[in-house]
Amino acid sequence: MTKALLAEWLDKAASCSLPGKGVSRLFLTKEHKRLLGYLRPLMEHCGLESEMDDAGNLVARKPALHSAKTLYLGSHQDTVPCGGCYDGILGVLVALLAVYELREVELPFNIEVIAFGDEEGTRFNSTLLGSTAVAGCFDPNILDCTDISGMSLAEALRRFGLNPDNIPQLTRNKEEAIGYVEVHIEQGPILENHRLPVGLVSAITGIERHMIKITGASGHAGTVPMHLRKDALVAAGNYISWLDTYSKTTKDLVGVVGKLDIYPNSVNVIPGIAELTLELRSPHGDTRRQARKELQKVTAKLVAQGFLVESELVYSLEEVICDQELTGRLESALVKEGIPPLTLFSGAGHDGLAMAHLCPVAMLFVRCRDGLSHHPDESIEIDDALTAKDILKRFIKDLASDF
Amino acid sequence: MTKALLAEWLDKAASCSLPGKGVSRLFLTKEHKRLLGYLRPLMEHCGLESEMDDAGNLVARKPALHSAKTLYLGSHQDTVPCGGCYDGILGVLVALLAVYELREVELPFNIEVIAFGDEEGTRFNSTLLGSTAVAGCFDPNILDCTDISGMSLAEALRRFGLNPDNIPQLTRNKEEAIGYVEVHIEQGPILENHRLPVGLVSAITGIERHMIKITGASGHAGTVPMHLRKDALVAAGNYISWLDTYSKTTKDLVGVVGKLDIYPNSVNVIPGIAELTLELRSPHGDTRRQARKELQKVTAKLVAQGFLVESELVYSLEEVICDQELTGRLESALVKEGIPPLTLFSGAGHDGLAMAHLCPVAMLFVRCRDGLSHHPDESIEIDDALTAKDILKRFIKDLASDF
Repeated sequence: MTKALLAEWLDKAASCSLPGKGVSRLFLTKEHKRLLGYLRPLMEHCGLESEMDDAGNLVARKPALHSAKTLYLGSHQDTVPCGGCYDGILGVLVALLAVYELREVELPFNIEVIAFGDEEGTRFNSTLLGSTAVAGCFDPNILDCTDISGMSLAEALRRFGLNPDNIPQLTRNKEEAIGYVEVHIEQGPILENHRLPVGLVSAITGIERHMIKITGASGHAGTVPMHLRKDALVAAGNYISWLDTYSKTTKDLVGVVGKLDIYPNSVNVIPGIAELTLELRSPHGDTRRQARKELQKVTAKLVAQGFLVESELVYSLEEVICDQELTGRLESALVKEGIPPLTLFSGAGHDGLAMAHLCPVAMLFVRCRDGLSHHPDESIEIDDALTAKDILKRFIKDLASDF
Repeated sequence: MTKALLAEWLDKAASCSLPGKGVSRLFLTKEHKRLLGYLRPLMEHCGLESEMDDAGNLVARKPALHSAKTLYLGSHQDTVPCGGCYDGILGVLVALLAVYELREVELPFNIEVIAFGDEEGTRFNSTLLGSTAVAGCFDPNILDCTDISGMSLAEALRRFGLNPDNIPQLTRNKEEAIGYVEVHIEQGPILENHRLPVGLVSAITGIERHMIKITGASGHAGTVPMHLRKDALVAAGNYISWLDTYSKTTKDLVGVVGKLDIYPNSVNVIPGIAELTLELRSPHGDTRRQARKELQKVTAKLVAQGFLVESELVYSLEEVICDQELTGRLESALVKEGIPPLTLFSGAGHDGLAMAHLCPVAMLFVRCRDGLSHHPDESIEIDDALTAKDILKRFIKDLASDF
């Protein structure tokens, strides 16, 4: 019964999408509006007050009679283009279902279930507007970011009926914030490999991205002797193989050269220029900094070989360590539900990165098939989501008892 | 005086170009026509008969009184876009100057100096139409090749006033062909490094090109553990580093991955597909075949790692070994001119690849600055070209004496 209900909610939410493969629901679009048209009545049907805020978040509230303290739950409503049915929205609906099942229970704190407007950041190449607004770390400069049509984020908010001038007023009071707990699909294969429905998140990874431009010397692929070549692609190969080997042999580090362009990119011309991006992710700042030092050694080697290397750190986001107490409470709930507790870190970013500025955060991951996400074939077992819901419900009740 | 003359000829030929950097003179264009308008009177001024043939070659003839035997000289008239002033046309003008200086000498064989229409093959993505027509290995299918505007080669020949139907009749008689000797800039740095004005060519390289498509698995750059990744760019790196190391340690082999495209080519996505070209050049067929075997080992390693690898040999051209007797005669002439003989192979293709189907071929390379070619800054010393002219003249006279 509950299973059918959650499946129906997920289906209805997934139908708020552009036509085509998977779910495409970008921030402040018609599809976003359609989802809100479905979610608001659903929230009210669950016995919650609902409110649209000026950052594009939809907030459902279960008020406490005599407390200003608030526990925050939820996740994001947006998807990548042709994404799946679960990334983001699952965390909103599971929280909603947990709170719905507690509708008869009076709690000693308020609960807000938030469907954050944008976490993927696909449309405006900026991210976490919704959660930074709530957490008080909103950067007004991102209002000038534009989408592919040239429309600014500020203009898109206005056309959606929102007033960006009010965003700074959305910041919650730190003293009154108990914590933020998010349920999210894992987007990786670890839980599946361990045959576990859910897992605890120790940290949300820190990320840094380097843009590297290598200038060697272009030339005729037949007439320049090998020992006189300065092949920029061969040089780029040094980064690619180093990063792969180093990441494979370093605990809790992943790395990728995701983008590589060479010039002139012609079958019979020695590549003269290679431009690549190199991304490092680890939940440990020290691990990333050590990797950066090793990266500099590769650069130094290439410079010594006569290459011109321009390397720039273009993006850097510190990790967020999940709160020990909140995570411990989640773990107790998990154990009481009979699930062996496995802790893993999140290699992807989440709204918790912003919410950590406001309050302690904790996350519960739900197993997904083949570790696949950001893809139309993204898939989960509804039973796993219900397990997450039960854990969340128990977590809330236990927190209330100890309050 | 002769120096000023050759410099003027080169300048005038270089001026037959599209506006812009360097020389752009593609096959069957207005610039080609302008060059012909300059070359024909020049050939006649040099005391030669001139004729335009239906393959777009301009042929200057110094007839012998009582012989059907013919020595072929020359090179190509066309350039790559924004090429230099010397690649191709130098060989035509040096031959013309040598024959001009022999205008009072009666020879026991005919000489033809040919300005071949297309060797670069830039316009129609086909190459050596002119020399294959003369040599009798013309492939009529290339008449259907089209340029960027969609015009076929056959149509372009007709619009130029030529009749492609007559091309098969251009084939010379093998019994009457003595040989083909071509002067060309080196397009590499070896003569410059040896401080030599000219050098002997042992062979024109064989070339093979492989297209390799590697399919791994795309995925989230943060959530897929390193040991579960199938990163197609990391796989491609195996070819890049193997080819560089193997070519550097194998005599007379050069190799390049000149073109590489990865998908989706995004900073935070594991590359799922990599497509690359891998080119091998060597004047020794065995060396190329051995390299191909080693290449297959790299492929086998990647397949064993779970990658899907589609590898195709898309282009293959056998090497042409320069004729020992003709080259020996060139060497004698070179030594008599006081130049230490250095023999090198040509890593680039030349008209000799086709002419070898008709008769023995030999080539003389002229030093070029920084090994630079196919570039507006391509540069030579006129004195080096005059040395080549003197050697060619002596070669012809010695050949006549021994005839």
